[in-house]
Amino acid sequence: MELIETVDDMRRWCEGQRAFGKTIALVPTMGFLHKGHLELLRVGRYLSDVLTLSIFVNPTQFGPSEDCEAYPRDLEGDLSKARHAGVDSVFVPTVKEMYPSGYQTTINVEKLAGHLCGTSRPGHFEGVATVVAKLFNIVRPHLAVFGKKDYQQLKVVRRMVEDLNMDIQIVGVPTVREPDGLAMSSRNRYLGPEERKSATCLKKSLDLADEMISRGETDPQKIKRAMKELILAHSFTQIDYVSICDPATLEDVDVIQGKVLVAVAVKVGRARLIDNSLLEP
Amino acid sequence: MELIETVDDMRRWCEGQRAFGKTIALVPTMGFLHKGHLELLRVGRYLSDVLTLSIFVNPTQFGPSEDCEAYPRDLEGDLSKARHAGVDSVFVPTVKEMYPSGYQTTINVEKLAGHLCGTSRPGHFEGVATVVAKLFNIVRPHLAVFGKKDYQQLKVVRRMVEDLNMDIQIVGVPTVREPDGLAMSSRNRYLGPEERKSATCLKKSLDLADEMISRGETDPQKIKRAMKELILAHSFTQIDYVSICDPATLEDVDVIQGKVLVAVAVKVGRARLIDNSLLEP
Repeated sequence: MELIETVDDMRRWCEGQRAFGKTIALVPTMGFLHKGHLELLRVGRYLSDVLTLSIFVNPTQFGPSEDCEAYPRDLEGDLSKARHAGVDSVFVPTVKEMYPSGYQTTINVEKLAGHLCGTSRPGHFEGVATVVAKLFNIVRPHLAVFGKKDYQQLKVVRRMVEDLNMDIQIVGVPTVREPDGLAMSSRNRYLGPEERKSATCLKKSLDLADEMISRGETDPQKIKRAMKELILAHSFTQIDYVSICDPATLEDVDVIQGKVLVAVAVKVGRARLIDNSLLEP
Repeated sequence: MELIETVDDMRRWCEGQRAFGKTIALVPTMGFLHKGHLELLRVGRYLSDVLTLSIFVNPTQFGPSEDCEAYPRDLEGDLSKARHAGVDSVFVPTVKEMYPSGYQTTINVEKLAGHLCGTSRPGHFEGVATVVAKLFNIVRPHLAVFGKKDYQQLKVVRRMVEDLNMDIQIVGVPTVREPDGLAMSSRNRYLGPEERKSATCLKKSLDLADEMISRGETDPQKIKRAMKELILAHSFTQIDYVSICDPATLEDVDVIQGKVLVAVAVKVGRARLIDNSLLEP
C-alpha cells in the first residue's frame, strides 16, 4: 500500500494506474475510520481495479466555532485498517498542500446547500464541494464512494459532478449502524456513556416517523412534533433540525404523498450527530 | 472538421483522440471569430496534435442589462474560418445542453474577481470560471489558449486551474490589434464610423502611460489623470475604469516600482471595450 502526501505524487501514481488500463475508485474521508468507512472501502474495492483512500480533515468545511482542531485523528490505526481493507494507495495531504498561499477558489452548489445542515453550518457544503472537486481532479477516479448517512453531502456531490460535467460515477452506500441503531460516525467518539445511550434517539425518531407514515399519517408537522418529543425525552439532547423534505430538492413538503427524506440533526452533549431515512407511504 | 453539439458526443470524440495518444488544445470562444481568435487557434494548432474550438455565448457571464442577446453571432462564417485554421472539432452546445433544468453549481475565484471588470460586471467572472471548468471537464484538453486582451479572465482561469488541481496548461497569447492599435474584439462590430475613430483612445491612453512611466513617473494618480483626460478628449466615450495595479493580485498600487498592469475599460457608444498593457519602469 502506497502512502502519498503530495498532489504531484498522487497524480503520478493514478496516471500510472490508468496507463495500465486500471479503473480507480476513490473513497474520500476525514480519517478516524470506523465500520461505515470500511463499508465504503469494501464497495470501492468490489467495483474497481484499484482502490484509493484519501484522509484529509478539511478545514474549509468546518465553521469557526466547530470541531476542526478537535476532530479525532488516528493515522496509524487508519493505515492498518486501510491495509486490511485492500486499499492500494492512501492520500494524506497537508492543509498547506491542498490550500497553498494565494488559494481563493470555491465551488457552490447553491440550492441544495441551502437546506438542512447548510442552514446551521453556513459554508460547510461549499467547503465539501470544493475539496471533493480538488480530490477528483487530482485522482481522476472512475468512481467515488460516499455514505448515505451524509445524504445531503451525497446529493451536493452528485449535483456538482453533473453540473460541472465531471466524468465520475458517484456511488452511495447505505448507513452502517451499531447494534442499537446509532449510525456510525467519527463524532460518536465524543459521547460519554450516558450521552451514548441518548444518541439512540436519532434512529428511534426516524423509526417513529416510519411507523407513523406506514400508519397513513400524511401531515409532516404532526410527525415532526412527535419526533421532537421523542428526541427531547432523552437526556443531553438539543435539536438542530428535524426535517421531512423532498429527497430531490431537500425542500420541506407540506403533505406526504410520495417518497420523502426524513432527516435529523441533534446535539448530544458536544457531539452534533445526523441521521436520515428515505420513507414512503 | 467535426461539428459537435452535445456534451456526450464531444466527450466521446475527445476520448477517441486521447486513446490514440493525441494531445488536445482547446480554444474556448463566444464565436464571431476575428483575427485575435485566429491567433489563438494558430497557437493551439502549433502546440498540440488536435485542435478543438468551442463556440458558446455563455449567458451566465452576462449581467441582466448586458448584451447577451445582442452579442454578434455568425456560425457559418466561424465554421469556415475554423476549417481554414485547421480546427479538428468545433463544439457548439446549446444553452440547454450546458445548463439543463436544475443546474445550480458555480465556481468563484474570489479575490481576483473583485477587481477591474469584476467591479462593474458582478457575477461575470463566476460565469466565466464556471463555463470554462465545464468545457475543461468535457474536453479534458492538455492545454487551453486564451487571449491576453482579457488579462483578468486569463488570471482567473489560471488561478482556478491551479486551485482546483486541474491538470491543464493555460497558454496566454498577446493581443492582436488593428493597424491603428485598436484591440481586436467581437464588440468592435457595435462601433459606428465616428465611434470607431474614438475607440483608438484605449490604446493611446496605454501608450501615454507607457511613455510617462518610461520618463520616470511613479505616481499612478498622475498617470491615470492624464489617461482619463486623453480618453475623454475623444467623442462618445464614457470611462468605466482606468487602473494601474499589481499584475499578480490586480490590487491598485500606490507607487510604481516594478511591473504594473495598466488596464482600461471604456464605453464607446454602446460598445464596452477593454484593453491593457504590462508596463515596467
